[in-house]
Amino acid sequence: MALLVQKFGGTSVADPDRIREVADWVARRRKAGDQIVLVVSAMGKETDELLRLADAVSGTRPGREMDMLITAGERKAAALVCMALHDVGVEADSFTGSQAGFITDTTHMNAKIVEIKPDRVLAALEAGRTPVLGGSQGVSVDKDVTFLGRGGSDTTAVAIAHAIGADACELYTDVSGVYTTDPRVVSEARKMNSISFDELLEMTATGCPKPAMRSVEFARSHGVTLHIRSAFTWEQGTWVSEEEPSMEDAIISAVTHDTSEAKVTVNNLPDNPGIAAKLFRNLADADVNVDMIVQNVSAYGQTDISFTVPKEELESASKVCEDCSTAMGGDGVSADSEIARVSVVGAGMKSNPGVAATMFETLAAAGINIEMISTSAIRISCVVRESEAERAVQEIHQAFELHAPA
Amino acid sequence: MALLVQKFGGTSVADPDRIREVADWVARRRKAGDQIVLVVSAMGKETDELLRLADAVSGTRPGREMDMLITAGERKAAALVCMALHDVGVEADSFTGSQAGFITDTTHMNAKIVEIKPDRVLAALEAGRTPVLGGSQGVSVDKDVTFLGRGGSDTTAVAIAHAIGADACELYTDVSGVYTTDPRVVSEARKMNSISFDELLEMTATGCPKPAMRSVEFARSHGVTLHIRSAFTWEQGTWVSEEEPSMEDAIISAVTHDTSEAKVTVNNLPDNPGIAAKLFRNLADADVNVDMIVQNVSAYGQTDISFTVPKEELESASKVCEDCSTAMGGDGVSADSEIARVSVVGAGMKSNPGVAATMFETLAAAGINIEMISTSAIRISCVVRESEAERAVQEIHQAFELHAPA
Repeated sequence: MALLVQKFGGTSVADPDRIREVADWVARRRKAGDQIVLVVSAMGKETDELLRLADAVSGTRPGREMDMLITAGERKAAALVCMALHDVGVEADSFTGSQAGFITDTTHMNAKIVEIKPDRVLAALEAGRTPVLGGSQGVSVDKDVTFLGRGGSDTTAVAIAHAIGADACELYTDVSGVYTTDPRVVSEARKMNSISFDELLEMTATGCPKPAMRSVEFARSHGVTLHIRSAFTWEQGTWVSEEEPSMEDAIISAVTHDTSEAKVTVNNLPDNPGIAAKLFRNLADADVNVDMIVQNVSAYGQTDISFTVPKEELESASKVCEDCSTAMGGDGVSADSEIARVSVVGAGMKSNPGVAATMFETLAAAGINIEMISTSAIRISCVVRESEAERAVQEIHQAFELHAPA
Repeated sequence: MALLVQKFGGTSVADPDRIREVADWVARRRKAGDQIVLVVSAMGKETDELLRLADAVSGTRPGREMDMLITAGERKAAALVCMALHDVGVEADSFTGSQAGFITDTTHMNAKIVEIKPDRVLAALEAGRTPVLGGSQGVSVDKDVTFLGRGGSDTTAVAIAHAIGADACELYTDVSGVYTTDPRVVSEARKMNSISFDELLEMTATGCPKPAMRSVEFARSHGVTLHIRSAFTWEQGTWVSEEEPSMEDAIISAVTHDTSEAKVTVNNLPDNPGIAAKLFRNLADADVNVDMIVQNVSAYGQTDISFTVPKEELESASKVCEDCSTAMGGDGVSADSEIARVSVVGAGMKSNPGVAATMFETLAAAGINIEMISTSAIRISCVVRESEAERAVQEIHQAFELHAPA
């Protein structure tokens, strides 16, 4: 007997068959004695379709109205899941964000949760019913409908799990857990039984696409145990918790790669205080999302500054940098969109200084040039040629012996 | 300067182009100085699509969840109309039924309005903004989302017009007003400039499809002036009010016909008290919607009872009648689905006793047999063969000189 929050993503409720399959699963868990609170995303690609519809109607797309429009998707899915649950004998009630007590700020399209008043959700549980929440939505302090943003259903799930003191928050998706690397690149990739929040955050930030980073941060801050698992195979997935990995755990948990970024280098800037500050202030003013930053000082009182940005922001970033370079007496800007970031992630590396060396040696032995390096306490990232990224992942995965036992 | 409620039906907001055209119209009216409250239906056939989706997911379709699902359609339309209004410089806010203050009973799929608290709508108007209400929805006294039923957006429009004391409620549709008869049947059919509530109710009940009868009843009860007009030509339509027709008005306003019903006759029942009561109680218990009822007493202490029902209920009605006939010693049941009801409607006939005679003479001269007759103070209906209905309408329209002036 456990109190569980179960979140189902868009592919998990994409059509009537999928919705009935989810209902069947919930009915089994209810029969086994668990109390369940469901959170559902909009069906399939419905959110994209609503965005296209808004584009076709309006050039201004005011945020308040966008939120009113988009949240209709999750609301429909919640109602349909409830109907399917009734059909299999599970008494269920759908709740909008407002009805579920999600009070948010007034930042439309990306609202932040201010407070949760889960009275109706708790009353439904108390009455032996199964509450089904429309994900990614709330009501603002001004009483307007708000949308928590793309991927916000994960946040809804984690937040309600915290608010009602659930034993775990299960995030159902179309993969069966978190893998040591992308199984499409390395066929021996292994599903991990457990992982720490910090590791998952580093993986999410470096190419592992699920779940939404914001929800993992919320779960870590509030100690909500996550279970990332499949709504297609229903097998046990990957548990995410605060626990330190045991002595037996591998030093390195996973290898990730990310080809969505581009690199910009500003050459030969004068190495004076405030130069970097000025450059990145201008980039921030132009709404450029800078990720990795590397600065090298040369022997001649000059410095090169390199950083990565999302590929779609490369043009505006280059423009800002060229203006800065001219103003500060630099030597031009080079932009490169054919890069990839390859990262190793693992809480174990904190106390194992040899990890970086092993990674660099592996890449060198494979003849793969490292163009940038950045590290955190539990992550090392190298920028390499995009064309060599998959080979880099394969070699590193091999070097750290992440393959499944033969 | 007027305070107007404008309701746009599904065809009027069926796609992005239509939505922008509606926004353009509202902007013109705002510039002319009018204050506007909009009510919108779901786009095009979206309500039907949502019903199909529910059918595909669930056999039970619990009412609470159906309402949560279906009201998403009007909500989306309201948000999109607001976006289009912003694009043309009209500050607008969408409101769900709950936000607009529509408190209803708990009868899902067909909720009745209990009270309207239009505080947010009035505050928006006060702030110079244009409120846009999702039609046909409210929140129940139990705080659940409710749907007012098909055609409920008309009711929403009339009810909010009453609650805020609007000067008129404009019901925009895909025809340009109310006609003296169906223009597809009689090409000289004339659009009426005005009509009384009673006449419109009789017309709605006898084949004129718009607007929803319930909304007309509400408007009559609360003295809300209606204006039925086109969202495609934008010309002046037909005004509906409590005023008596003036002396110059025609005795007869319109000729309608309805081919959606079938006729059932129960033959040679014993003419005892309580026979009809028993028959129609059994029909009511079987959820058969009986419309016209005619009973003739024969010379031999026996009676025939005939009535009309919607064609789709003919089978169950026949079954009930056969059981009754057997139990009461009747002489069998005949069912006939190839009938039509032709009606003349007009407040003027109250003081003109010759109307019925003229109608019957016209049909006789045209060789059209009358199978049933029923009358109200402002309506006379005749059941004729379905194949002769259009000719009957043409002849009667001619006989009462309803054609447009040459």
